[in-house]
Amino acid sequence: MSTPVYDVAILGSGMAGSMLSAVLARNGVKVLLIDAGTHPRFAVGESTIPYTSALVKIVAERYQVPELHSLENFKGIAENISPMCGKKRNFGFVYHREGQPHDPAQINEIVLPQVEQRMESHLFRQDVDAYLFHLAVGYGAEPHTGTRVTDIDFHPGKGVRLRTDQGATFHAKYLVDGSGYRSPVAQKFGLRDQPTRARHHSRSMFTHMIGVTPFDDAAAARGHTQPSAWHHGTLHHVFDGGWLWVIPFDNYEQSRNPLCSVGLTLDERVFPASDLTPQQEFDNFLARFPEIAEQFRGARAVRPWASTGERMQYSSSRTVGDRYCLTSHAAGFIDALYSRGLTNTVEVVNALAARLIDASRDDDWSTERFEYIERLQQGLFDIHDDLAYSSFVSFRDYELWNAVERVWESTNYLPWQVLERAYARFLATRDEQILRDLDNREVPGLPDPIGREIAALVTYTRETCQAVEAGELASGEAAKRIFAQLRQAEWLPEPWERANPDNKFFAASPQLFSLAEEWGRTKAPAHVAPLFR
Amino acid sequence: MSTPVYDVAILGSGMAGSMLSAVLARNGVKVLLIDAGTHPRFAVGESTIPYTSALVKIVAERYQVPELHSLENFKGIAENISPMCGKKRNFGFVYHREGQPHDPAQINEIVLPQVEQRMESHLFRQDVDAYLFHLAVGYGAEPHTGTRVTDIDFHPGKGVRLRTDQGATFHAKYLVDGSGYRSPVAQKFGLRDQPTRARHHSRSMFTHMIGVTPFDDAAAARGHTQPSAWHHGTLHHVFDGGWLWVIPFDNYEQSRNPLCSVGLTLDERVFPASDLTPQQEFDNFLARFPEIAEQFRGARAVRPWASTGERMQYSSSRTVGDRYCLTSHAAGFIDALYSRGLTNTVEVVNALAARLIDASRDDDWSTERFEYIERLQQGLFDIHDDLAYSSFVSFRDYELWNAVERVWESTNYLPWQVLERAYARFLATRDEQILRDLDNREVPGLPDPIGREIAALVTYTRETCQAVEAGELASGEAAKRIFAQLRQAEWLPEPWERANPDNKFFAASPQLFSLAEEWGRTKAPAHVAPLFR
Repeated sequence: MSTPVYDVAILGSGMAGSMLSAVLARNGVKVLLIDAGTHPRFAVGESTIPYTSALVKIVAERYQVPELHSLENFKGIAENISPMCGKKRNFGFVYHREGQPHDPAQINEIVLPQVEQRMESHLFRQDVDAYLFHLAVGYGAEPHTGTRVTDIDFHPGKGVRLRTDQGATFHAKYLVDGSGYRSPVAQKFGLRDQPTRARHHSRSMFTHMIGVTPFDDAAAARGHTQPSAWHHGTLHHVFDGGWLWVIPFDNYEQSRNPLCSVGLTLDERVFPASDLTPQQEFDNFLARFPEIAEQFRGARAVRPWASTGERMQYSSSRTVGDRYCLTSHAAGFIDALYSRGLTNTVEVVNALAARLIDASRDDDWSTERFEYIERLQQGLFDIHDDLAYSSFVSFRDYELWNAVERVWESTNYLPWQVLERAYARFLATRDEQILRDLDNREVPGLPDPIGREIAALVTYTRETCQAVEAGELASGEAAKRIFAQLRQAEWLPEPWERANPDNKFFAASPQLFSLAEEWGRTKAPAHVAPLFR
Repeated sequence: MSTPVYDVAILGSGMAGSMLSAVLARNGVKVLLIDAGTHPRFAVGESTIPYTSALVKIVAERYQVPELHSLENFKGIAENISPMCGKKRNFGFVYHREGQPHDPAQINEIVLPQVEQRMESHLFRQDVDAYLFHLAVGYGAEPHTGTRVTDIDFHPGKGVRLRTDQGATFHAKYLVDGSGYRSPVAQKFGLRDQPTRARHHSRSMFTHMIGVTPFDDAAAARGHTQPSAWHHGTLHHVFDGGWLWVIPFDNYEQSRNPLCSVGLTLDERVFPASDLTPQQEFDNFLARFPEIAEQFRGARAVRPWASTGERMQYSSSRTVGDRYCLTSHAAGFIDALYSRGLTNTVEVVNALAARLIDASRDDDWSTERFEYIERLQQGLFDIHDDLAYSSFVSFRDYELWNAVERVWESTNYLPWQVLERAYARFLATRDEQILRDLDNREVPGLPDPIGREIAALVTYTRETCQAVEAGELASGEAAKRIFAQLRQAEWLPEPWERANPDNKFFAASPQLFSLAEEWGRTKAPAHVAPLFR
């Protein structure tokens, strides 16, 4: 085999592949970026969360890619990337029961911080992905789009040779497979779990629509008292057997985008796949849920529906091997629920980039150096699986869903604060060890010092939901037990009342944060207190 | 055949199909819009001219589609459609001879009006096309993208039945084929001229690039004295056998787009097609023209090159038949030179929409009603063919090119003024006959009162260039004869000096316009004078 020409070859120029390419190229790594498709293109994974945005600014600062700072809040995105993205001011959940009128008390909402430098976004992915791709190419990554890899040959201890349908041959020292379900590396090495180890079951269909009415204007929203309008955030209609997302891009005055992202995700055991088109399935679904249907009267898909057809969960027995790594969606997928796909993508880019830069500087690509990536990705997968699985079980009964939703809420605040504190300390000291520690955790995907406790809560919730699903436990009793766990969780700021079933809204207001600060000073356990200073 | 469900079915949701759909749907016509592809997508046809923009505002006002006003100048586009478009402040031409240093005197430039409401644009087509498509759907056109038409059956006097690869059947009273080269209607009825009647010969390859250096910064641009920077407009590198376009999207401070459109168009008889990839061909071409190459050092294509492969001219014996019409690019194509594709598209939409609206109101779809569209499209094709043919012949000798470029210039000013005056009169009177007269001309594509005279000049130029190509006339002598014609053209404002070979720049400044106004008052022929009031 001749000398490799590239340090790292990356398959897939989506968000993961392009962001990683930009970071690597910026740091002197010779990058080859191959994609079977081209930009611009439709993609989902549109809803950011504070944890994602905190990761983005860490990546921007740690790897000195200032252009990534534009991606860390809505303002930067709107001004520097695209005016086609939406504002995400909240996470909203509206619970429905087929054949029954919606109970206006069965809603939950998290209102995100409303300050400019913290505003979350509904990413119009075609523009964001192209921005990142152009960033990578601008930093010197060598792009070959419209190019399919036909052969991958690994030469142990040396690297990889790629052949393409364009007749080219490339050599690289390391291969990152950032593609997706049809990952060529997973296929080559038979890495897919058969069947998947995921407990969660679902299939999905999604598109972009024009003419979606804000749910706030629907009759079913009368009597709602949540603090932030549904259309100002990511709306989840929740029901036994699935959920439906509405992600508006058209939800602020200066928006240039008349579209909303709409997706219907169904447990395929409850709603089996059929020969119907996705539009017909969607119409049939709306006929069963007339209160959801109201906001889609006059709405029209502006592109063909994408559909996973069958169950969409997949996982891999390994995600890291000799001279290769599969990144998030090439490694596995659970569900769009809770917008964890984007987060996992950036988390893996952050942890993997440092290791690839080091490996390329040392010319040492030994697999041990990437072992954490394996643990990280498998850990992220399992946590997401537990959360999605528990949620779908809970959808049978609002009381249980109300409890599981709080568990999901609880996985967010503190990890986000850990990142913010680390970022602030890094800016003050420029001590890279602070960031290296972040991506070398005891519980992958859940940062110290509260990773173990959150993981235990998630596991408890999943086990409780398993008992419900097995018919061993009534859903009401399960809800009580989970709320009891939440009450006992000393690391959760008590003034936020997340363990109170009746307190269904959480607005991340300055008042609530100052209450939490006081709690941090006076009552919080020692290991948590610093997060509230 | 069952009752048609749609009035008009339109194939292709590009600029022509989407704009026409929006206009028709807005006016109560039931529209079906089918496209084999989806948005977003790459397209070329990026450079607007004042005539195009004047047509756009006429369409917006005439058909009461206010959203189209955003497309009539750069400001509206940047604020309401996309911040990814470039500013087009000039048309620039730089002449090169292989193997010889560039002569800095061999340049030409038209500087367009610099006022906000007249600023021309480099359209980032993926965004503009999606805007128009969403506009059409928003007005009620029924979209089916990702859908290929497999069967077209005309039922004389009744309409058309379409079957698709999605298993659907649609009926419509009229079919507009707005697709392109592979027009299903042209194929069905064998409408393509075999061979094409076009005199012009060329093939083309094009892409979007990042990292293109403004030509103003290249060594070859030293000594240039043109009034407006090359990178502020659409730059044409011109040479014997072809031309190369550079259309910057990155040419103003607030641009969010780092790309330039780059295209190389070659006479396939001078530069025969080969087995090389377009990138290799482009690299080889740059090696032959090192002064052009300078601005591409460090530039990189961010998408696969598109290539026509062989000669790209095609034409149709008819473009209108019983219950169908082929619009511009489904009917024929000449060359991207002079940005006439966009103009022709809007011109045909403008003339066709009124006829379709009338036909649908009267339920009378007889072919005679569309005869003008046939004449218009064939006329537009032939004028463009004459201009492109003459230009390519002239590229052998700067002196001759300098003359032909003036002929092209001369086809622009007065027709543009005709539209502006008609638009102003329409706004003042709301008399629709003013606009109906515009699209019912003696010389299609060249408005009265100067259509005949411009057509005669274009024909003379083409015949002169034919004599040069046949070896019957020296190029220098041909140039002299064409300049003599320009000097005799009484309808050309004499103070503009377009017949002076040494006056290579035309800046559409207030001063030049007031000189022309004075000329209009004192010296202009009676039929032209009103255009300068």
